[in-house]
Amino acid sequence: MKKSISQATIDRLPLYFRTLRLMEETEINIISSDELGRRLDITPEQIRKDLTTFGQFGKKGIGYDVRELKDRISNILGLQNHWRLAIVGVGHLGGALANYVNFASLGFSVVALLDKNPKIVGTKVNGITVGNISDMKEIISDKAVDIGIITVPATEAQDTADALIAANVKGIWNFAPIKLNVPDNIPLVNEDLSIGLSALSYHMSQN
Amino acid sequence: MKKSISQATIDRLPLYFRTLRLMEETEINIISSDELGRRLDITPEQIRKDLTTFGQFGKKGIGYDVRELKDRISNILGLQNHWRLAIVGVGHLGGALANYVNFASLGFSVVALLDKNPKIVGTKVNGITVGNISDMKEIISDKAVDIGIITVPATEAQDTADALIAANVKGIWNFAPIKLNVPDNIPLVNEDLSIGLSALSYHMSQN
Repeated sequence: MKKSISQATIDRLPLYFRTLRLMEETEINIISSDELGRRLDITPEQIRKDLTTFGQFGKKGIGYDVRELKDRISNILGLQNHWRLAIVGVGHLGGALANYVNFASLGFSVVALLDKNPKIVGTKVNGITVGNISDMKEIISDKAVDIGIITVPATEAQDTADALIAANVKGIWNFAPIKLNVPDNIPLVNEDLSIGLSALSYHMSQN
Repeated sequence: MKKSISQATIDRLPLYFRTLRLMEETEINIISSDELGRRLDITPEQIRKDLTTFGQFGKKGIGYDVRELKDRISNILGLQNHWRLAIVGVGHLGGALANYVNFASLGFSVVALLDKNPKIVGTKVNGITVGNISDMKEIISDKAVDIGIITVPATEAQDTADALIAANVKGIWNFAPIKLNVPDNIPLVNEDLSIGLSALSYHMSQN
């Protein structure tokens, strides 16, 4: 059942989660798909379709229980694990990710930063002292890091992935524009910031 | 016909485009869906399905004409427009985007940077002098900017969007974690860096 959730649905779940969390904080207990759709600019039909993928929710004419739905989405996405992140490569992009506020709202926390540049090692970014890549294994273990984020240049990305896996991370988020080889048991997500920009270009061309 | 292309397909097109462009440069003229799939870690069935969405391509048992397919994808995504970008908010994220190499490979170019912080205005990032937000209209016009990229804090994002639209940009790419109100004729893409991370969390939870 779980395996059949589409990538597009998975990509919308964090948006639902974040909105539901804000509602819970403002003591809203019940939400309709119409209202959730209005807040997120997604059609109510799409929302109902997404949510029925993983079971029956909500009561006809009443709506969804905010807390129940939020907890269920958290469970599906695995957010209750409160994954701990290490960023490898503290250049512009690594620095931006170290300061990115949206991670915390989904339960992620950046606990380690690593670089090989002696000018960067030892400096503090968002309260975290940058460690040396040569000490990766020890730092990953000490800080109980779950996820390695790769923001090094493409030429160093495979070596970085190999080192992260040797240091026992459980998953890799790769920003380097290169296809990485990792074992089947290590989930890997490749990020490409220009995909959103291409989608925008597509929509602009339709005008 | 064009309107029926799914978001997931649109998101894969830049990957196809980039791979085809590299092939063209290395003088590969014909590519099979098997080979394209192997390079991108996407199933050949998915690739064939994506490509048939916008017409008949390729010859059974032979493959796709690299250049023809590349040009067609460029045309669908509107990449031949060589859109010109302005980044508003030159903090960590804006600075990272100003230095992001993948944009150029899709024909985009960053031509203007804007900030309101007097310590940042006048400095150079990746060869571009940061202008003052108060001069936005003039700079957007002088530099013939098509797309405004919003990397200011959430509290300033709507004002920034309004100013960009008043300055006649044709599309907006928003990184601020807030729902923006823009006119229907201005395409808007919202980017949330934590979506990829949530997808990774999902896959790690399935293990």
